[in-house]
Amino acid sequence: MIISVLGPQGTYADKAIHSWLKHRNISKNNIELKYYNDIIETFDGVIKDYTDFGIVPIENSIEGSVGITLDLLFNLDVEIIDEVIVPIKHCLLSNGKKDEIKIILSHPQALGQCRQFLKKYFPDAEIRNTGSTSHASKLATEFREMASIASKESAKRYGLNILCCNIQDYKNNHTRFIIFRKRNNIKYQGIQKKITDKYKTSIIAYLNDDKPGALYELLKFFALHDINLTRIESRPSKKALGDYVFYIDFVGNISDNIIKDVLNNIGNKVGMMKVLGSYLVIE
Amino acid sequence: MIISVLGPQGTYADKAIHSWLKHRNISKNNIELKYYNDIIETFDGVIKDYTDFGIVPIENSIEGSVGITLDLLFNLDVEIIDEVIVPIKHCLLSNGKKDEIKIILSHPQALGQCRQFLKKYFPDAEIRNTGSTSHASKLATEFREMASIASKESAKRYGLNILCCNIQDYKNNHTRFIIFRKRNNIKYQGIQKKITDKYKTSIIAYLNDDKPGALYELLKFFALHDINLTRIESRPSKKALGDYVFYIDFVGNISDNIIKDVLNNIGNKVGMMKVLGSYLVIE
Repeated sequence: MIISVLGPQGTYADKAIHSWLKHRNISKNNIELKYYNDIIETFDGVIKDYTDFGIVPIENSIEGSVGITLDLLFNLDVEIIDEVIVPIKHCLLSNGKKDEIKIILSHPQALGQCRQFLKKYFPDAEIRNTGSTSHASKLATEFREMASIASKESAKRYGLNILCCNIQDYKNNHTRFIIFRKRNNIKYQGIQKKITDKYKTSIIAYLNDDKPGALYELLKFFALHDINLTRIESRPSKKALGDYVFYIDFVGNISDNIIKDVLNNIGNKVGMMKVLGSYLVIE
Repeated sequence: MIISVLGPQGTYADKAIHSWLKHRNISKNNIELKYYNDIIETFDGVIKDYTDFGIVPIENSIEGSVGITLDLLFNLDVEIIDEVIVPIKHCLLSNGKKDEIKIILSHPQALGQCRQFLKKYFPDAEIRNTGSTSHASKLATEFREMASIASKESAKRYGLNILCCNIQDYKNNHTRFIIFRKRNNIKYQGIQKKITDKYKTSIIAYLNDDKPGALYELLKFFALHDINLTRIESRPSKKALGDYVFYIDFVGNISDNIIKDVLNNIGNKVGMMKVLGSYLVIE
């Protein structure tokens, strides 16, 4: 099994894929991880059959939705098979001791998320930006006066010591990753679904009839059957200004007859509907 | 008039504030721009009365919503007074000529957005990450073999030549910025609203009654009065898992009696409602 992972190695997507493999009881001996530079290339690996599955972020609790992932789910023929939620816990890593640290390196987002910590404990340190948290750790191996902000897995990978952990200012910081494959990929059908309450289904609906109340009409089908929505987001359709597609997640599995009926009704009502998949949420 | 701007100078927020000043006919002689390092600090400047207004991004067409902006709008007592949409047009800037360029610098997001361009025209160039597009331009002034990817305003500010413009792979790339002030700030009331069709209103609603169909009930009020929604997004309330707040934008002005009635009805129905403001969209 070959998996496209948003790289480089040692970042949070890498962490997410390892917790997925563990949860799914897939031995690491049977898999090959291919690291890609960006989200488009990660999808591309799956679409061009270089890999069997892909993993990319779809939403971060601080940064919000990842627009390019939403757009590619709209444009490409893939299905979501699982979701993995990874808590983002930044650590301060170094080969030196706390009082030796003069330079602190990380991705600008991670530095921003630890701003109060840095102000309080390292007010005089020089702060440097890097392209990824992994790259920061790699650089930090070179001098004892350098520290990186990265995950604790990164410490292990680069042989750095963990000076402090969970240093982000917002404790509620997590990223949702999706595992996807090309639709109708018949390989690895062993990764199957059972009907349980925990399943979530994601759809994209495009209301070609952009009149007020169109979304209300769509939501009626869910309300009538007491189906709980867990997420709704509008995104410009890029066809015309003020024209939207809706990304809707709800509790339930497409194997369930009620859900099937609801989706059939919606499909008849809207301009376009795409079912992204019914999947388990792994935390 | 003092304005909090998400800095540093020369980035797209800076561009947005200048197009706002122009649109509002506010002379640059009467304003002072204070540049902040991050979105939290930009809001803080307004809340602590260091500045009269603030400008921050709320959504990018590629990257999606800016979660921290949505959260701060929920938590702080501010009102949106205008929205500015800035097309993101990346340019290649340098003091050297095209065939001299060996190193290309920019913020990782900008580099990612120009990936196909870089592959096609500069396959052998070394790519380096910087903390902002502005910082890349500053560095590029030092050597003729270096180029930055940044806005054309950045070329002007750092005295660089524009080698090519509009080089981003996705032409539809824009960021929405909001101009906000502390609620009930009585200074500069001259920046007032007229009732026109172009006004948009933003609200946040929290349905403390998390039963299926609650959102449907809320949208009924808009549908009954033919009010067109322009954006809807759910975001975890952070009170409990699966508990959401909804960010809703719609066409109309709170000065209009119909809108007033609709919002009163919604206010009586939901657990919490916050009106973020009625404002003009400046493109």
